[in-house]
Amino acid sequence: MRLRIEGGLVVTMDASGRVLDPGVVEVEDGRIAHVGPEPSAEEAEARSAAGLIVVPGLVNTHCHLSQQLGRGLADDVDLLTWLRGRIWPYEAALSEEDVEVSALACAVEQIRNGVTTIADPGGQHVDGAGRGLERAGIRGFLGRSTMDEPEGVPESRRESTEETLAVQDELAARWDGAADGRLRFSYTLRTIFNCSDELIEGSVERARSLGTPLQMHIAEIEAENEHTKATRGTTTVRHLSNLGVLGPWFLGAHAVWLEDEEISLLAESGAAVSHNLASNLRVLGMPRVADMLDAGVLVALGTDGAPANNRMSLIDELWAATLLQKGMRLDPTVLDARTAFAMVTRNGARALGIDHEIGSLEAGKAADLVLVDPRTVNMTPVHDAVSALVTSMKSENVNSVMCAGRWLLEEGQITVLDERELLAETQERAEAVARRAEVRT
Amino acid sequence: MRLRIEGGLVVTMDASGRVLDPGVVEVEDGRIAHVGPEPSAEEAEARSAAGLIVVPGLVNTHCHLSQQLGRGLADDVDLLTWLRGRIWPYEAALSEEDVEVSALACAVEQIRNGVTTIADPGGQHVDGAGRGLERAGIRGFLGRSTMDEPEGVPESRRESTEETLAVQDELAARWDGAADGRLRFSYTLRTIFNCSDELIEGSVERARSLGTPLQMHIAEIEAENEHTKATRGTTTVRHLSNLGVLGPWFLGAHAVWLEDEEISLLAESGAAVSHNLASNLRVLGMPRVADMLDAGVLVALGTDGAPANNRMSLIDELWAATLLQKGMRLDPTVLDARTAFAMVTRNGARALGIDHEIGSLEAGKAADLVLVDPRTVNMTPVHDAVSALVTSMKSENVNSVMCAGRWLLEEGQITVLDERELLAETQERAEAVARRAEVRT
Repeated sequence: MRLRIEGGLVVTMDASGRVLDPGVVEVEDGRIAHVGPEPSAEEAEARSAAGLIVVPGLVNTHCHLSQQLGRGLADDVDLLTWLRGRIWPYEAALSEEDVEVSALACAVEQIRNGVTTIADPGGQHVDGAGRGLERAGIRGFLGRSTMDEPEGVPESRRESTEETLAVQDELAARWDGAADGRLRFSYTLRTIFNCSDELIEGSVERARSLGTPLQMHIAEIEAENEHTKATRGTTTVRHLSNLGVLGPWFLGAHAVWLEDEEISLLAESGAAVSHNLASNLRVLGMPRVADMLDAGVLVALGTDGAPANNRMSLIDELWAATLLQKGMRLDPTVLDARTAFAMVTRNGARALGIDHEIGSLEAGKAADLVLVDPRTVNMTPVHDAVSALVTSMKSENVNSVMCAGRWLLEEGQITVLDERELLAETQERAEAVARRAEVRT
Repeated sequence: MRLRIEGGLVVTMDASGRVLDPGVVEVEDGRIAHVGPEPSAEEAEARSAAGLIVVPGLVNTHCHLSQQLGRGLADDVDLLTWLRGRIWPYEAALSEEDVEVSALACAVEQIRNGVTTIADPGGQHVDGAGRGLERAGIRGFLGRSTMDEPEGVPESRRESTEETLAVQDELAARWDGAADGRLRFSYTLRTIFNCSDELIEGSVERARSLGTPLQMHIAEIEAENEHTKATRGTTTVRHLSNLGVLGPWFLGAHAVWLEDEEISLLAESGAAVSHNLASNLRVLGMPRVADMLDAGVLVALGTDGAPANNRMSLIDELWAATLLQKGMRLDPTVLDARTAFAMVTRNGARALGIDHEIGSLEAGKAADLVLVDPRTVNMTPVHDAVSALVTSMKSENVNSVMCAGRWLLEEGQITVLDERELLAETQERAEAVARRAEVRT
């Protein structure tokens, strides 16, 4: 039976930027069947969205599913302590069941923030993460933390190039296309500090043949470029360009330390950048997002992982990301609301290579959508709805979330599981992992 | 009858930084009667706070009560358009009843963010704002937007030095000490662009004699210092220092464009600074908050007004303010959680000169407190409660709020009024004001 969502203000985020007030979105068999100012002639079950804003499901292009239990384990410490003293021991102490719960809790937080698609840039126990996403009902790209250069890496995590690629090939065979196609697999690279050129080249080849993005953390800290210069003779982005790695299949995360020429290389290649405001400010630096957008780089947003942010809210990232660029440029007009909201919808879908499927409300696309209720004290008054989505919407305004035609959140209630039970298990497992990892805050 | 809040984790924010897990807070006649690991011997009605975190009511040191209806009226525009094309016409179109509703809506948003004390740095129709705060049950400093230099100011707003001081004297007589002492009056100055030295000196004299802070917007934009140099021969903060205006009674807002010497002048004088992260980034620049704290300046936080932020959430400001300073300094250890949480509690109370009354949970102080429920997906897991208050708490975690012994929010419900009705009136009046002001977004 077709579902007709009617009476709401519909922000389509299609190429024309059409806003329908009021508008109708019809859903059938997991897909959007019709979008317009008037209903279609088809019979349908009506759902009123009067007073609500209907937007496409948001896209979180950088979200470490296996780090959720580590939220708060690495606050206010320097980067080396963050990575080697907290995150690596935490990751080493995780069981596959821990990761399933971590991914599930992370996915539920994403749903409550209006996110319907997640890209994991690499974690542990991918089978656990996959089961978590499957249970949460969300769309996602799984990825495995990948390194073949042992410097600084714990004994238990060392792998050869062949091993790490072979494990990923197996995961791709198992997960790509799972859960009625909602789940995909993505080859990922941690950073150039711990990845050989052989691994980088093997990964891009596989990513292109699989048709999903190659994800890599790039230009994270100043010292990274120094390291790449010392080992490869030039900076990270230039080196990737020389290797032929940059292209529309490439999704680079962070990209904090870029020179103008490197921004041009990214733009010309069609590569995408995932900007992660909070984690960048916390441990890395201040990325030139407005400059990247001006140069034509495709920029999307991501939350990073819970120990780096610690809010896993794409909505909060969106608000703060616009503010930072305005402040850096001393220009309140940069990253205006329409440009910004595209970053978490259309741009995110393109960055993941699935803009034919998601990223806007258009007939034929997957039925991934969010009902926003602006009638709360933090969002009232609304003078311009699109602007309000960026400047005053918070997760508490996310009323209902649909992914592939199924409601995952309905009027504030998670429908796919018992949330209280999940939270209790999350807290319990997080404490046990921290004890096993011997991490003290 | 005494109330005993028991079983929660109590973050006292007293000088020793004591955290009680679990702890007891007892309240009688609007005051905190006892804080400790064990209950007192007195008879009391018990209220369980098991699973919750008990913190002092937060202090918002810069909050324009009369701007709430203008949220979203001035997004993505340059500063001059912001001020002259949007805010001044908006303010000129307000009626006293509009301001009462604006203040009420603003206060309710503050309550939902755990704020129990507001300082208004100057608005229109102060009687309306006062009635709004009175109805909301919150603690606050009222203030009137004050200017005596006509440059760029709309005809309707022009006043002489004597007039503007006389109006404020009347307001002080009417409002200071109202609502059982919850309301105070504070002399305020808009900016040095529109305030004569005579007005500045008259205001500081009155503020000191009344015993409430003199609030002023200072060093907001680079051009301000150029203007002050041209008209007074030196920069704003140096000029105020020369006039003898700086001192523990002085609360300067924004303070974005400061030289090292000016930071020292603020520190040595005992003046306080209200840092407003979002509005600074949006229209002004990036203030050196970590440098100010290092130099010994008393820094507190504020939200500014709804058209400048647009989230009026001190909790979101807290999260983002710590991130920005870490990013500016490239040092994840600056503005650690305990320092940051002091900014919205203890420091806020000191900045307003009422740290003997509020700002920490200690016997004898006013019963202004918040129950935080961390058992939500955005805050789970908690490894360190104080850190979590800064890094992952959101307004949705604010469960109950008490001011002067009275619950204003109880288990997520506003107790002092019908919130739905207020929101409908807020939206309606906001649209009417925008029409009258002929402001288009």
